[in-house]
Amino acid sequence: METSYCSDWWHRDGLSLNGDRLSFAGINPARLAAELETPLFLYDANRIEANLRRLTAALKTISAPSRIFYAMKANRYPGIMTHLKNLRLCGIDVCSPPEMLYALNAGFTENDISYTGTSVSDSDIDILLKYPDVTVNCDSLSMIRRLGRKSPGRGIGLRINPGSGLGYRQNQLLQYAGSKPTKFGIYLSQLAEATALCAQYGLKINGIHFHCGCGYLTPQLPLLEKVLEKVQGFLDKFKELRYVNIGGGLGIPLVQDDAPLDLTAWARLINNHLGGREFEIRMEPGDYIVKDAGILLLEVNTVEEKEGILFLGVNGGFNLHPEPVFYNLPLHIVPCRLRSGPLLKVTIAGNINEALDIFADGISLPPVHEGDLLAFLNAGGYGSAMSSNHCCRGQFQERLLTSTTNTGSIL
Amino acid sequence: METSYCSDWWHRDGLSLNGDRLSFAGINPARLAAELETPLFLYDANRIEANLRRLTAALKTISAPSRIFYAMKANRYPGIMTHLKNLRLCGIDVCSPPEMLYALNAGFTENDISYTGTSVSDSDIDILLKYPDVTVNCDSLSMIRRLGRKSPGRGIGLRINPGSGLGYRQNQLLQYAGSKPTKFGIYLSQLAEATALCAQYGLKINGIHFHCGCGYLTPQLPLLEKVLEKVQGFLDKFKELRYVNIGGGLGIPLVQDDAPLDLTAWARLINNHLGGREFEIRMEPGDYIVKDAGILLLEVNTVEEKEGILFLGVNGGFNLHPEPVFYNLPLHIVPCRLRSGPLLKVTIAGNINEALDIFADGISLPPVHEGDLLAFLNAGGYGSAMSSNHCCRGQFQERLLTSTTNTGSIL
Repeated sequence: METSYCSDWWHRDGLSLNGDRLSFAGINPARLAAELETPLFLYDANRIEANLRRLTAALKTISAPSRIFYAMKANRYPGIMTHLKNLRLCGIDVCSPPEMLYALNAGFTENDISYTGTSVSDSDIDILLKYPDVTVNCDSLSMIRRLGRKSPGRGIGLRINPGSGLGYRQNQLLQYAGSKPTKFGIYLSQLAEATALCAQYGLKINGIHFHCGCGYLTPQLPLLEKVLEKVQGFLDKFKELRYVNIGGGLGIPLVQDDAPLDLTAWARLINNHLGGREFEIRMEPGDYIVKDAGILLLEVNTVEEKEGILFLGVNGGFNLHPEPVFYNLPLHIVPCRLRSGPLLKVTIAGNINEALDIFADGISLPPVHEGDLLAFLNAGGYGSAMSSNHCCRGQFQERLLTSTTNTGSIL
Repeated sequence: METSYCSDWWHRDGLSLNGDRLSFAGINPARLAAELETPLFLYDANRIEANLRRLTAALKTISAPSRIFYAMKANRYPGIMTHLKNLRLCGIDVCSPPEMLYALNAGFTENDISYTGTSVSDSDIDILLKYPDVTVNCDSLSMIRRLGRKSPGRGIGLRINPGSGLGYRQNQLLQYAGSKPTKFGIYLSQLAEATALCAQYGLKINGIHFHCGCGYLTPQLPLLEKVLEKVQGFLDKFKELRYVNIGGGLGIPLVQDDAPLDLTAWARLINNHLGGREFEIRMEPGDYIVKDAGILLLEVNTVEEKEGILFLGVNGGFNLHPEPVFYNLPLHIVPCRLRSGPLLKVTIAGNINEALDIFADGISLPPVHEGDLLAFLNAGGYGSAMSSNHCCRGQFQERLLTSTTNTGSIL
């Protein structure tokens, strides 16, 4: 997780240094933190919209109708769900019946919702079948069989497994479909049995779904092309598909050396392999929509050198955001107010009684004092949504900053 | 995580096969699961008591008064907290102010509670200071300074870091105090400054606390001895200590090759290094009390071979128990009803849309059908307490089985 502080590679619209102060969504986040207390997740409504519009524009270059379903597992904060509902730029991808009900409660209609789960139980299926207009992609022969028995004649999608995948920096933990068989989807070797089962129960196959990675950037596009080539082997088996869902997995830069995903090249690849057919192209971005739209603010309560290492202790732990510890995905850390002085090598320690609870190890920061606030960038995805109450340290707040709040009187 | 199914190494009082049925705490857990539905954590009150009594007996062989504080971060299920309160065999170790309040709410008194946290904030200290009879162990010079300013003259403990540690199978993630400096405690090099700060604020040092590992068994006792030798370097600096808290970390067998910790040898080590002095010996076991007293029941909903691998999909994921995926600590898996037939090599897949959500990879089980229940043994610690609502899949139930419920009419 080594990184240089000096660079401003992370600056973008709505996120930059304004003199010695961090500016986020048009405000000084430290002022809001003083009012609300930390731990505090802040989300930039404009950034979420910009991410969605950028992706929508890229999809429009493809010779096919297209539709985005936001993967709510990345972040289900109600303010974000309502924002997305109001923007009318996407539906919702859900992966469990409770997520489906949550999306319905947030105002999305059945037609706005696409379900793709795994290890689906009979009671899961019972709940799904109450909502006939929700798209349901079946993950296994077992699911086809059990759903078919309960609801013969329904339309479904098939989640397929093309047998290869890609992930952020080839992170093994994030391989959805690599060389080793995974639990997900229907392999080509199972396809004949899958279509036979669908025929047996009169299930109409409306679409296919595949997911091939997590956090991929431009250097991984050749791997995406290999996946798309393998998908052809499935497409040839179907006629009359209404949609092909290419999953999510689009990444954002996490460290200075990462370049943003080249969406033009990405869309060209998709178009070359899937464009110009009868079906709609669907996709399910999660992180790409919300990750760089969120920051986590924590307060430094301890600055102390131990055995030659300068530890900065903060008032939150890995239970609030598991990606640095468990997925080896760094959160870039910037003080909300830059103090002058030489850069120091520091280790950022959370407040959970586990040695692994280290947000960053040996990064360079300007001087930091006890009481200072640190902003953990790119914290908008898989943070609060995966948080736990381990050690009863699960309390935090969340706010969505809109253009209105940005100029509102409270700030 | 390879393991052989055939052996009955995991049998013990209250946990065994009764013919072809698993017996737990005197009942057939499948019958309770049918009534309550799964995911379901079950805890054996008798086993919790037996674990506490065994440890209490070992401590009594040491030439010193002793006291156990149960580390509630392992499992804070209210039924367990009440059970421990009624047994009157231990106090409670807490690591955050909300845990302290939780323990007080469960009926433990201030004198029953020992606090040892890290990266402690000013507002944490404000809450702690409202309860003057709670033992507070200070983790850093910074904490001593900030607590001293707010409450000069208070009695405290010092959490020290002896600079070496030990963990289950040398799991790097679980090293609390290894060769690389950790965030925890006060190193010997800081001790003079720590005692000077205590003198400055009139803080009386009542005890010292150290923690040296996680899940250690008999083969790791020589490493424990090295830690105890290093602790001597600290003890020499203090007079009039009321207690020395040796932390937790006592392990239990997780796989067939693990032998139970030799408590006699363990107590002899503690006695040799810490016995016969003026101070009380305190300790903070968590897993040792509850881990093997709990099982997690999940239902198999999918049995399907994919590319030569036989996957068993279950109705719960790593978000309900993170140890297999994130800590590489296996949960031994036994079907609640043994079907006859040859052993098969299977992979147990959870219901979360992440490829890493695999409970066990390539273990041998008898034939399993869709609808069968699997018991995940040794699930009593760091399971429900660390669970998250990732993918809105965080729902589960918990029950404590007592002698009364064991013979009750509902079963």
